[in-house]
Amino acid sequence: MKQVRVGMIGYKFMGKAHSHAYRDVPMFFPKVPKPVMKTICGRDAEAVAQAAEQFGWESCTTDWRELLQREDIDLVDINAPSHVHKEIVLASAAAGKHVFCEKPLALTLAESRKMLRAVEAAGVKHMVGFNYRFVPAVRLAKKLIDEGRLGHIYHFRAWFMQDWLIDPEFPLVWRLRKEVAGSGAHGDLGAHLIDLAHYLIGDMTEVVGMNETFVKERPLPESEAGAPVDGRQACGPVTVDDATLFLARFAGGALGSFEATRIAGGCRCRNAFEINGSEGSVKFDFERMNELQVFFADDPGDVQGFRRVLATDPSHAYAEAWWPPGHTIGYEHTIIHETVELLQAIGEDRQPVPNFRDGVKSQQVLEAVDLSIAERRWASIQEV
Amino acid sequence: MKQVRVGMIGYKFMGKAHSHAYRDVPMFFPKVPKPVMKTICGRDAEAVAQAAEQFGWESCTTDWRELLQREDIDLVDINAPSHVHKEIVLASAAAGKHVFCEKPLALTLAESRKMLRAVEAAGVKHMVGFNYRFVPAVRLAKKLIDEGRLGHIYHFRAWFMQDWLIDPEFPLVWRLRKEVAGSGAHGDLGAHLIDLAHYLIGDMTEVVGMNETFVKERPLPESEAGAPVDGRQACGPVTVDDATLFLARFAGGALGSFEATRIAGGCRCRNAFEINGSEGSVKFDFERMNELQVFFADDPGDVQGFRRVLATDPSHAYAEAWWPPGHTIGYEHTIIHETVELLQAIGEDRQPVPNFRDGVKSQQVLEAVDLSIAERRWASIQEV
Amino acid sequence: MKQVRVGMIGYKFMGKAHSHAYRDVPMFFPKVPKPVMKTICGRDAEAVAQAAEQFGWESCTTDWRELLQREDIDLVDINAPSHVHKEIVLASAAAGKHVFCEKPLALTLAESRKMLRAVEAAGVKHMVGFNYRFVPAVRLAKKLIDEGRLGHIYHFRAWFMQDWLIDPEFPLVWRLRKEVAGSGAHGDLGAHLIDLAHYLIGDMTEVVGMNETFVKERPLPESEAGAPVDGRQACGPVTVDDATLFLARFAGGALGSFEATRIAGGCRCRNAFEINGSEGSVKFDFERMNELQVFFADDPGDVQGFRRVLATDPSHAYAEAWWPPGHTIGYEHTIIHETVELLQAIGEDRQPVPNFRDGVKSQQVLEAVDLSIAERRWASIQEV
Amino acid sequence: MKQVRVGMIGYKFMGKAHSHAYRDVPMFFPKVPKPVMKTICGRDAEAVAQAAEQFGWESCTTDWRELLQREDIDLVDINAPSHVHKEIVLASAAAGKHVFCEKPLALTLAESRKMLRAVEAAGVKHMVGFNYRFVPAVRLAKKLIDEGRLGHIYHFRAWFMQDWLIDPEFPLVWRLRKEVAGSGAHGDLGAHLIDLAHYLIGDMTEVVGMNETFVKERPLPESEAGAPVDGRQACGPVTVDDATLFLARFAGGALGSFEATRIAGGCRCRNAFEINGSEGSVKFDFERMNELQVFFADDPGDVQGFRRVLATDPSHAYAEAWWPPGHTIGYEHTIIHETVELLQAIGEDRQPVPNFRDGVKSQQVLEAVDLSIAERRWASIQEV
Repeated sequence: MKQVRVGMIGYKFMGKAHSHAYRDVPMFFPKVPKPVMKTICGRDAEAVAQAAEQFGWESCTTDWRELLQREDIDLVDINAPSHVHKEIVLASAAAGKHVFCEKPLALTLAESRKMLRAVEAAGVKHMVGFNYRFVPAVRLAKKLIDEGRLGHIYHFRAWFMQDWLIDPEFPLVWRLRKEVAGSGAHGDLGAHLIDLAHYLIGDMTEVVGMNETFVKERPLPESEAGAPVDGRQACGPVTVDDATLFLARFAGGALGSFEATRIAGGCRCRNAFEINGSEGSVKFDFERMNELQVFFADDPGDVQGFRRVLATDPSHAYAEAWWPPGHTIGYEHTIIHETVELLQAIGEDRQPVPNFRDGVKSQQVLEAVDLSIAERRWASIQEV
Repeated sequence: MKQVRVGMIGYKFMGKAHSHAYRDVPMFFPKVPKPVMKTICGRDAEAVAQAAEQFGWESCTTDWRELLQREDIDLVDINAPSHVHKEIVLASAAAGKHVFCEKPLALTLAESRKMLRAVEAAGVKHMVGFNYRFVPAVRLAKKLIDEGRLGHIYHFRAWFMQDWLIDPEFPLVWRLRKEVAGSGAHGDLGAHLIDLAHYLIGDMTEVVGMNETFVKERPLPESEAGAPVDGRQACGPVTVDDATLFLARFAGGALGSFEATRIAGGCRCRNAFEINGSEGSVKFDFERMNELQVFFADDPGDVQGFRRVLATDPSHAYAEAWWPPGHTIGYEHTIIHETVELLQAIGEDRQPVPNFRDGVKSQQVLEAVDLSIAERRWASIQEV
Repeated sequence: MKQVRVGMIGYKFMGKAHSHAYRDVPMFFPKVPKPVMKTICGRDAEAVAQAAEQFGWESCTTDWRELLQREDIDLVDINAPSHVHKEIVLASAAAGKHVFCEKPLALTLAESRKMLRAVEAAGVKHMVGFNYRFVPAVRLAKKLIDEGRLGHIYHFRAWFMQDWLIDPEFPLVWRLRKEVAGSGAHGDLGAHLIDLAHYLIGDMTEVVGMNETFVKERPLPESEAGAPVDGRQACGPVTVDDATLFLARFAGGALGSFEATRIAGGCRCRNAFEINGSEGSVKFDFERMNELQVFFADDPGDVQGFRRVLATDPSHAYAEAWWPPGHTIGYEHTIIHETVELLQAIGEDRQPVPNFRDGVKSQQVLEAVDLSIAERRWASIQEV
Repeated sequence: MKQVRVGMIGYKFMGKAHSHAYRDVPMFFPKVPKPVMKTICGRDAEAVAQAAEQFGWESCTTDWRELLQREDIDLVDINAPSHVHKEIVLASAAAGKHVFCEKPLALTLAESRKMLRAVEAAGVKHMVGFNYRFVPAVRLAKKLIDEGRLGHIYHFRAWFMQDWLIDPEFPLVWRLRKEVAGSGAHGDLGAHLIDLAHYLIGDMTEVVGMNETFVKERPLPESEAGAPVDGRQACGPVTVDDATLFLARFAGGALGSFEATRIAGGCRCRNAFEINGSEGSVKFDFERMNELQVFFADDPGDVQGFRRVLATDPSHAYAEAWWPPGHTIGYEHTIIHETVELLQAIGEDRQPVPNFRDGVKSQQVLEAVDLSIAERRWASIQEV
């Protein structure tokens, strides 16, 4: 297969990032099967037409079912809001299309398991959008672990901190409503951390967590509640978590600590982790995504310390496709690399990684944490 | 009281640091009651005599009970190993001496409560050695919180990471044996984090934790087990934790996350915390103890970011006693400042802070964490 | 003008970066006149055909003069090696085409002046490729200066450090030969620093410099010298500078310090500057290109310090075209932003900035530095 | 010689730092000859009496000549203002006393040469107070160079930046008057950089510099000019440099770049240098004085980068005298280590390092820079 014909559902932030990836892959990764941007789908006809024009799609539609019936579509890319993922994935699988679904796969573990069964039964390729695996510095961490250069892993700790909710007047958008978003910081940000933990360290066995909604009410959008009366805007309850933390044990013996929050002032997008092993340690922070801090316990005694490695050298993953050493890349490149993996996997007739199995595993941990919070106890991953 | 006559029990690492503090206080803080270094006490007559000479004590003894009987001693400074604290404190209180006791107060909460009752009944001054409160950058964090400049506090997270146990051949020293040390990383390092949390954020209400001993056996010291046979040294079991982590809720509503470990490669003495509030955030790392990272949510939109504040300006606590701005201080200064507080409190006839009440509170949290680990559940601070 | 039809000469590193910019502009900056990628030109027919295919050009040619004769070309983009710039620019101007020329404009100041006269006489738009002006964090520095928030400027210091020449066995490529490259680190890297100084601080009046070629001979490429004999490769002399440093005075009174080197181990692409003014300071390093360190002298006394500003907020230049706060961008975005300026200027019928006047000014300083080195004295900018 | 009996002239900032060093040495470096704090001398009888009491000197005097006549003084420590150094040093040498003189040795090179001849003729030990050589992290840099681990040195660049003159209303203190201070930032701060360059890299052969006084007038102190009239304080001219920069060539072939300024906002005490060699690089900043950044060119390709080495391990200079790894030290420790070298040298009957030869060498470079500025040309070190 030299080409992969794509139909995409969704056209906002992630739709833009995915579209750009399809545009960039053929130029920077010419050996990968070439994506053909056939059709983009969205509910608002005018907006989706404009997106098609701006992003470079051949056509557009407002009917995703129609898109699935087209013979000239090989791959369905789903980045619409989470609560519609399930239905589209099931239909895509039924139509025999490969599926690229943004995280989280679904609002519940049960749904995501059903989605996994569907794509596996259909025999199609399936990928889930855990893009942070594709940061070159994260790949370097993985390589160091796989080659045993960090030794046996003792500690994994990770944080995904943002601060866009620090203003209590920030309105009650859909992401703050459980019925639409399913979850708050936990599902949105924590899901990424859990997937990175799976990728880097392996499976967890049990978790215990806590969460909080610090700002319990927020102003309703004017589109819902009308203009303020006497200078006060009508408010509604925030029904998802502002922050969720949990402890975990890994099957390999490591101790894990996780935190997701949207209310940590000064942290715009601090998706960070640290790993300590018997031979070395690494530290990563997405706000400095080109860097990995690396420590080796067997460095000479007088020059031990964390090295700041700029993962832009030819020996680093994906670096040769881009620019000379020291010329850094940005957020969107994680999406491009992810897309490369997807297209390569389709070309090689294998499952891409991470796929729906990884999506389910991540969701399983999310729900085990929720169970542990509800019942105020340690929860086993196996019990959910 | 213009002078405070000191008798000190202990002469190793902390004995050296305390001795130096007594020497430095009169020079840099001349308005504080002057400590007089009367007698130092230790079990090894030769070693303690040498310490007396080197550190500048007037005399030395091997009998701490004798020391307590002397009329010319106002203050007893106890930095001998933890398992002897209780007996000495009780006797000191009975003798009507002020007491400066290193942390942890005792091996158990019950013991430390008994010690608190004793000093309170005796009406003497009592201090516990939580020296990290006395870092100028930590004082600045406290000031920002007290003045409301961080707003309502949402998050407190803290780590005390060391790496001296990363080598599995590191021997089974007394700190790794429960019967002598009481606890491992939890009581040694975690206790400091808990005290900082109390100081900066306030009381906790409940905790849940986990711990691990990664290296379960270590070589016995030659003094115990003799030389290696066939190149292999006899080993013994490590009976304390290498690492303990826990989550906590604060009475004020903040979420807490704590980690103490002695096996985090590359972290020589990373005693660090982060605080996020509704108006701002701070970050601290003892390896860069002169710095506080400070973020304010109301900075102009185009120049928001963490500021690296060097807490060496005249407006910072203790700074004027030392050197011009930018001329940093080190670890030992925390002990000097702590001693200033103790001597000032004695001079002003008030209890120093932190005192045994703080020591008990810290131990209460330590034990609640241990309970939560033993019973695999959240434990209330009140129940221990 | 809704479209700008482009013919490009060159297809290596910069050709790739420029091509990508033409592809990305319509998607991320839809209001800018749309570039149409008509023809790409290079000497190697096979290679340029492959580049045309991979980068997305409609056609290709090996004859740049033919390209200039085409009626359907509005803009000529020149990123071929420096020693051919002059001839192509003069011909492009004669053909009435807009010109986008990579830096340095030419091998000598005299040539670049001739080029400037040619494009001005022809009345076409002209731009020179000083892309670092288009880093959002650099734009923020400029904004702070223009708004007076740094006060009167006292100091500007800048370094462009790379380390690809640290290995003495690195071969004698064309960049190390004066007849082809014109200059070494000075013209390649120093030229960027000089342009940033002009952009941020203004004109210089006089300079004094020094330079050095540390590794005076390097192995000839096998293509020239054949395979090694007895394990030794034939060597040739390096005829350009490994490093050039100079001091400068600015017309506005500031003191300047500049350094360009390709032999600074550990510096992959450290294009960095610092500015100190009467009200504040900034620091920038391209290896962390999304960040600007900002200090204000009127911050409250207890919280003074450099802030790490992540220039990814909506208030920062170009940021809204990309991703949410904290989602960083990379090297290639500087080229995209530069291209936006060029296309906008063509659309608005004004000269883009930086243009050939800036290119000449940069080259004037380069040559004044060379003069100062040759004659071991301060050289006035006006005298060259 | 088991003891060294000290008489000290001066009791302000440096007098305090030196006094503290004499107090600390016996405790932390017990094998070094013990300093005995005999007499402290200053012009203000009351103030010096208080200093004697506070700092721990046995007696005090206002007559330094009397001090030199005392038989029970072995070492004269001179930290009075620079313009009195010469006379006291000559008299001390004549009296056969060892001399410890703060930098700069004198106001002129000619004076400092005379002082060197005097101490050499007298056969006494002599030391100059370049304390930054005694930072453990600086010692590590020196060790790496001496062991060849950085290879052949190509680049040395150094800055000493402070910001206490950023406020134009800061008064015209004596340090801003040439007749008393001799020089501004150049002699005060630049002298330290020059000495570090000599220590780390070796001799320079030629220099070219520039300087500036940005704030040309400042308010006179009220003690001189009386109170402000109509809200305006009388002003006087600043007669020393706010900033001096220069380029240098080293005898070993390295290129040097130096900058001293007191008006760089946000830099409280940024005494920093960078060294690039053929095998590696180091970076140092006194504001983080416990750290050295170290890069090795032969690190594996995928983990190259600057390591942050905390120079507090047992393998680092002076570290074992202090605290466990990661427990940092501060500014005053540089003075203590310097004093250890002095006392050790006296005990071993050898000249301490750095001594007056180093003081003269530093002053020679200072004056060569001044000459190059006056005559707007490169100046040879040999010609002054």
